[in-house]
Amino acid sequence: MRIVSFIDNGESRIGVRDQNDIIDLSIAMPELPQDLLAILQAGPELMVKIKAEASKAPKEARKPYKNVEFSPLIARPPKIICIGRNYAAHAAEGGAETPTYPEIFFRGAESLIGHKQYIIRPKCSDRLDYEGEVAVIIGKKGRHISEEDAFDHIVGYTIFNDATIRDYQRKSSQWTIGKTFDGTGAFGPELVTSDELPLGMKEVQIQTRLNGRVMQNANTRDLVFPVDYLIATLSECMTLMPGDVIVTGTPAGVGYARTPPVFMKPGDVCEIEVEGLGVLINTVADE
Amino acid sequence: MRIVSFIDNGESRIGVRDQNDIIDLSIAMPELPQDLLAILQAGPELMVKIKAEASKAPKEARKPYKNVEFSPLIARPPKIICIGRNYAAHAAEGGAETPTYPEIFFRGAESLIGHKQYIIRPKCSDRLDYEGEVAVIIGKKGRHISEEDAFDHIVGYTIFNDATIRDYQRKSSQWTIGKTFDGTGAFGPELVTSDELPLGMKEVQIQTRLNGRVMQNANTRDLVFPVDYLIATLSECMTLMPGDVIVTGTPAGVGYARTPPVFMKPGDVCEIEVEGLGVLINTVADE
Repeated sequence: MRIVSFIDNGESRIGVRDQNDIIDLSIAMPELPQDLLAILQAGPELMVKIKAEASKAPKEARKPYKNVEFSPLIARPPKIICIGRNYAAHAAEGGAETPTYPEIFFRGAESLIGHKQYIIRPKCSDRLDYEGEVAVIIGKKGRHISEEDAFDHIVGYTIFNDATIRDYQRKSSQWTIGKTFDGTGAFGPELVTSDELPLGMKEVQIQTRLNGRVMQNANTRDLVFPVDYLIATLSECMTLMPGDVIVTGTPAGVGYARTPPVFMKPGDVCEIEVEGLGVLINTVADE
Repeated sequence: MRIVSFIDNGESRIGVRDQNDIIDLSIAMPELPQDLLAILQAGPELMVKIKAEASKAPKEARKPYKNVEFSPLIARPPKIICIGRNYAAHAAEGGAETPTYPEIFFRGAESLIGHKQYIIRPKCSDRLDYEGEVAVIIGKKGRHISEEDAFDHIVGYTIFNDATIRDYQRKSSQWTIGKTFDGTGAFGPELVTSDELPLGMKEVQIQTRLNGRVMQNANTRDLVFPVDYLIATLSECMTLMPGDVIVTGTPAGVGYARTPPVFMKPGDVCEIEVEGLGVLINTVADE
């Protein structure tokens, strides 16, 4: 199943993709909260029910996919856990060693945007960089989750553009401030449930294009810390909650490490394509 | 006004302190959501109304303060923004320079505990350290807030114990993982509204005691980046939301920097006292 969050006449809506249509769950299942976090918190039985009900939805619940006005897939995830330097070649291009323990930081929900919404270049900096990443979405609460059990806690995956204000990332030893500017975390377009994807999203291609030019092109087989390892490591320390997002890290090819450096500017179109997850597309605009 | 969040027969409750009593708002104002975040999101008019209604609450709404079972002051703040190395003497005891820009990281809400709840020493480490801090609570949404306007965005203050798993803090360059263990962020006991406190909590004493021994003893006049500066700096980058918490940093005297180092162990009692805000008391227990 492929789920989207969207806006209809200013109201939050959840939809299920069916080929070139969206089935609007506010029509197909009017009793549901129109909030993906609440749906995930309700547990896997509800997901099964949604799949069944969506398949027999009335015609008036269908809308063309191409007309959908996307919002961030989850408006307020309990935690947005980002992993830094999780591809060795990306660590190296930044002059860093391959980490021996994940580099972990959080984003705030105010930074999130949806598919096709603008990535915002702030007034205070022109060092806006892209970072294409695979994002894991947690479906089941857990602490001390073993690597063996990790996949049971994942409801699905999506794409994330962990766009970064590079000079703010380096203003102190802690990267968080450069990673949580309003309107920089593109998140979507769809939650694709795990059953439609390779286990752990192992060995899938990820590609970032800026104005059509390939900037990042890698395979998740090169993740230093793969998804199951991340879930075990994170849950040693903290409870993972339904709706938590783990943004697994970006491959080599980011803009700041290029010669000459490349930063995104208004009008630029950044596309991140991940095998099985679709394409996340965002245009840049000035604040 | 002094507001607490507490548990009554397993239910979340909000109360207003009146001397040695709590006025239970689920009785005094049954129409209110029993969730401090929702109250803050409703805006300042509701705070004025609560103050008025609490003063004329019926007798059955009163409970002895000493019997209150506290919960984290806000269960799920939109953001928990922590500032590192914000007292020069603390930066120095860790071998670091005084920062020229705030060191910023986020905590997750799963790490929060209330006044008198246990601080949890995790299975994986015995390097549990205290950090007494003043916490700012945002009452009004804003972006690009000037230092002059900063205090208008603060609804009040409380105390925070930014308890840290030191070896995990140092496992990578990013501190977040050591700062977000379940059951380590003590948050309370009371939201004291700004009108009852010195402007910006300037020049107030903060003291941390471990089993009665004074471990940290400082004055907020020594904050490298004071509260108004922090709000202006953070809001250059991100929207501050009602219920956001800014944990302003800890003074010198933390356990790991002592000779010999001091770490907290089960049965230890950690008290943080801040002038005007009361005392936050937590006992340590093993996971």
